[in-house]
Amino acid sequence: MTVKIIELVGTSPENFGEAVENAVERASRTIRNISGVDIIKFSAKTEKGKIVEYRANVKIAFTVEDGEGV
Amino acid sequence: MTVKIIELVGTSPENFGEAVENAVERASRTIRNISGVDIIKFSAKTEKGKIVEYRANVKIAFTVEDGEGV
Amino acid sequence: MTVKIIELVGTSPENFGEAVENAVERASRTIRNISGVDIIKFSAKTEKGKIVEYRANVKIAFTVEDGEGV
Amino acid sequence: MTVKIIELVGTSPENFGEAVENAVERASRTIRNISGVDIIKFSAKTEKGKIVEYRANVKIAFTVEDGEGV
Amino acid sequence: MTVKIIELVGTSPENFGEAVENAVERASRTIRNISGVDIIKFSAKTEKGKIVEYRANVKIAFTVEDGEGV
Amino acid sequence: MTVKIIELVGTSPENFGEAVENAVERASRTIRNISGVDIIKFSAKTEKGKIVEYRANVKIAFTVEDGEGV
Amino acid sequence: MTVKIIELVGTSPENFGEAVENAVERASRTIRNISGVDIIKFSAKTEKGKIVEYRANVKIAFTVEDGEGV
Amino acid sequence: MTVKIIELVGTSPENFGEAVENAVERASRTIRNISGVDIIKFSAKTEKGKIVEYRANVKIAFTVEDGEGV
Amino acid sequence: MTVKIIELVGTSPENFGEAVENAVERASRTIRNISGVDIIKFSAKTEKGKIVEYRANVKIAFTVEDGEGV
Amino acid sequence: MTVKIIELVGTSPENFGEAVENAVERASRTIRNISGVDIIKFSAKTEKGKIVEYRANVKIAFTVEDGEGV
Amino acid sequence: MTVKIIELVGTSPENFGEAVENAVERASRTIRNISGVDIIKFSAKTEKGKIVEYRANVKIAFTVEDGEGV
Amino acid sequence: MTVKIIELVGTSPENFGEAVENAVERASRTIRNISGVDIIKFSAKTEKGKIVEYRANVKIAFTVEDGEGV
Repeated sequence: MTVKIIELVGTSPENFGEAVENAVERASRTIRNISGVDIIKFSAKTEKGKIVEYRANVKIAFTVEDGEGV
Repeated sequence: MTVKIIELVGTSPENFGEAVENAVERASRTIRNISGVDIIKFSAKTEKGKIVEYRANVKIAFTVEDGEGV
Repeated sequence: MTVKIIELVGTSPENFGEAVENAVERASRTIRNISGVDIIKFSAKTEKGKIVEYRANVKIAFTVEDGEGV
Repeated sequence: MTVKIIELVGTSPENFGEAVENAVERASRTIRNISGVDIIKFSAKTEKGKIVEYRANVKIAFTVEDGEGV
Repeated sequence: MTVKIIELVGTSPENFGEAVENAVERASRTIRNISGVDIIKFSAKTEKGKIVEYRANVKIAFTVEDGEGV
Repeated sequence: MTVKIIELVGTSPENFGEAVENAVERASRTIRNISGVDIIKFSAKTEKGKIVEYRANVKIAFTVEDGEGV
Repeated sequence: MTVKIIELVGTSPENFGEAVENAVERASRTIRNISGVDIIKFSAKTEKGKIVEYRANVKIAFTVEDGEGV
Repeated sequence: MTVKIIELVGTSPENFGEAVENAVERASRTIRNISGVDIIKFSAKTEKGKIVEYRANVKIAFTVEDGEGV
Repeated sequence: MTVKIIELVGTSPENFGEAVENAVERASRTIRNISGVDIIKFSAKTEKGKIVEYRANVKIAFTVEDGEGV
Repeated sequence: MTVKIIELVGTSPENFGEAVENAVERASRTIRNISGVDIIKFSAKTEKGKIVEYRANVKIAFTVEDGEGV
Repeated sequence: MTVKIIELVGTSPENFGEAVENAVERASRTIRNISGVDIIKFSAKTEKGKIVEYRANVKIAFTVEDGEGV
Repeated sequence: MTVKIIELVGTSPENFGEAVENAVERASRTIRNISGVDIIKFSAKTEKGKIVEYRANVKIAFTVEDGEGV
C-alpha cells in the first residue's frame, strides 16, 4: 500500500472547522480512499477589522489505487 | 513547585474544540491541579469523504503534589 | 508598501475561534488596514478540570501608512 | 530544468528500508526521471504489541518533462 | 474556494531570483490562477569552486477550478 | 476515546529497526492497546570507532482504558 | 543596552533584495540605531503567471534609546 | 535497556539554573537511574516588573527497570 | 483581555540571567502589566577569547489596557 | 572537557544503517574519542526507479584532546 | 564516499547572491570537490538606515578525499 | 570577509554559564578572531539525582584569516 499526501487550503466565511471540512469535501470529489487529514496552519483574511475568510492549510492522505499514477 | 506535562490526544465526532475539551475532561478524572493546555496539532480521520473523528494532540500541565511520583 | 506584523494573544471564555476574532477586533480599534492573521498557537487555561479561557497567539499584518512610524 | 516534489508514504510489513524502497518503486511506475528521495518521517502501526506495518513519509523529486503538466 | 499547493524546484544558471521566476513560469504553462509563491529553501550546485546552478524550492498556490481534480 | 503518548528510547546492539522494536516490545509488557509509534530521532553510541548501541527515540500512542489514570 | 526586534514585510516590484532594502529604508524613517536585519521568509504574489510583487519578511533590530518606550 | 523520557517544569524564585536543579531533585525522589536532562525552554513569571519565578521546561531521561511499567 | 507580545534583546556584561532581567526591567519602565517572559535564544559577543556581552532574546507578554493602542 | 561536533554524510549502496556506520568508520580513521552520533536526515539517490545510494547526514561528537585545535 | 558539511558566513557589500558566491569562492581556495551549497539564513548589517553588509549563512558539502582527515 | 561557524559542547561541574565560557575559552586557544557565540542547547548529566555535568552546545563564529583553510 502506498499513500499520497497533498496540501490544500480550505476556506470558509464562517469558521476554521468549516474551512477544514470544505478542503476535505473538495478533495473527496475526485479522490476516493482519503484516510486522514493533518492541519498544518490556520490563517484568516480580514476586511474592515473583521475576519471575512477563514483558511486552513491541510495535508490530505489517501491510498493510491492500483494502476493509478502518483 | 514542580509541574508535569503529559501528551494526550483528545477525540470528538463533532469538532476540534470538543476534542480538546474531551482530553482535558479525561485527564481531570485522575489529575487534580491541571493549570493549562497547549494544543500541539489538530488532525482528523475521514470516511467516505467526511470527517468522522476530530483529533487534538494536547500537552496538559499540572502541579505535582507532595508525596506524589512524577 | 510596507507591512508590519505584531503578535497578540486573543482570549475568549467560549472557544478558539472567538479568541482569534477578539484579537482581530481589539487590534482593529487602533489599526486600520489589517490584511491578514496567522494563527501561531492555541492554548487554554483550566480550573477544576474545565477550560475557562481559550487563548490564540496570532500574528496580525497591516499596511504601514505614510507618515506613520513602524 | 524544473523539478517537482511529491510526498508519499511507503509501507512494508518488514522494515523501514523496504518502506522507503516501496514508495520509490510505486512512484517509478508512472514517473520517469526520479532523481532523489528525502525521508521526512518514520512511523509504524502496531497490533498486540508488535509492529505490523513500517511506514516512511518520503519526498520524491523528479524532473518535469517538456510538455508535461506540473 | 479551495487552493492547492505544490512544491517545485526552479533552477537557473544565473541567480536565485531567476530560479524562483523559472519555477513560476514553468508552473503557469499548465496552471491558471496561481496566486502566490512561498520560497522554502535556496541551494546551489557547484563545479570547480563556482556555482553552476542556482536552485529554489518553492511552494506554489493556485485556486482549484470547478470540475478539476485536486 | 482518549489516547496517551509517551516517549521512550529503545536500544539495540544490532540496528535501528531493532531499537524501535525493542521500545515497542518493552512498552507492550505493561500497556495494552498500543496503536502506533512515531520515530522522533535516531542516534548511536560508539566505542573505538564502532557503533555499540543503536538508539531510537520513539513516541508510543495507546488508548487510555476506562477507569485508568492518564 | 536593550535591543528591540520588530517584524516587517518589505515589498518590491523588482526583486527580493530590493524588498529587503525597502523594509529597512521604511523603518529607518522613524527608527534610528538599526543594527541589523534577519530575513525570515521570502514570498511573492503572481498575476497571469508572472511575479508582480516580491516580498521579504524581515526582523529588524534596533537599540532602544534612553527615555524611549519599548 | 529502555529509557523513558518525561517532561517537567522546574521552578525557582532565584534563577534558571536552580529551576533545572529543582526539577531534577523532585524527579529523583521517586525515580532512580536518571541519566540526563535536556532543557527545552526557559521562561519566567513577572510581577511589578520583576521576575518572581524562573521556570525551566526539561526532559528527564531514566532507565526503566525490570518489572516496572513504562 | 488581549495580550501583546514584543521581542527584546536584553544584554549584560555578567551573565545570561542578568540579560533576561535587564530586558524585563527595561520593558517595565514603560509597560505595566507584564505577565510573563519566554526566552527565545541566548547568545554572546566575545573579544580576545572572552565573553564581553551576554545576550538574551526574550518575548515579553503584557496585557493591553483599555484605550491603549496595540 | 570540550566536545566538538561535525556533520558528515555517510553513503552506502546497501541500506541506511550501513550509511551511518560508514560515516562513523570514516571519521574514526582520523578522530579518536568519538562518543556519539546523531542522525540528522536520511535521503537517497535513485536511478531508473531504484535506490542506488543510501545517504545519512550525521552529527559526530568527539572529545577534543589537550593541545589539539578545535 | 563520505561527504563533509561545514557552515560558513559569506559577506558582500552588494547583495545576497554575491554573499553566497563569496563563501563558495573562499571555501574553494582550500577545498576541492565542493558538490553543493545549502543556504541556511540571510541577514544584513545596517548603518544609518542602509544595508552595508549582506550576509549568507551557508552549508557547504564536499567529498572527503582518501587519506584526508574529516 | 568570510566567517566560519563550528559547533562545540562546553562542560562545567558548576553551571550552564560556565559551560558556555569553557567552550569559548577552549576555542580561543587555537582560534583568533572569535566574534560571537550562539547557544543551541543546554543539557546535563546526572548521578544519584544530582547534576554532575552542565553542558552547553554552542556555535562559535570566527573570521577566517587570509591564507587559512576553512
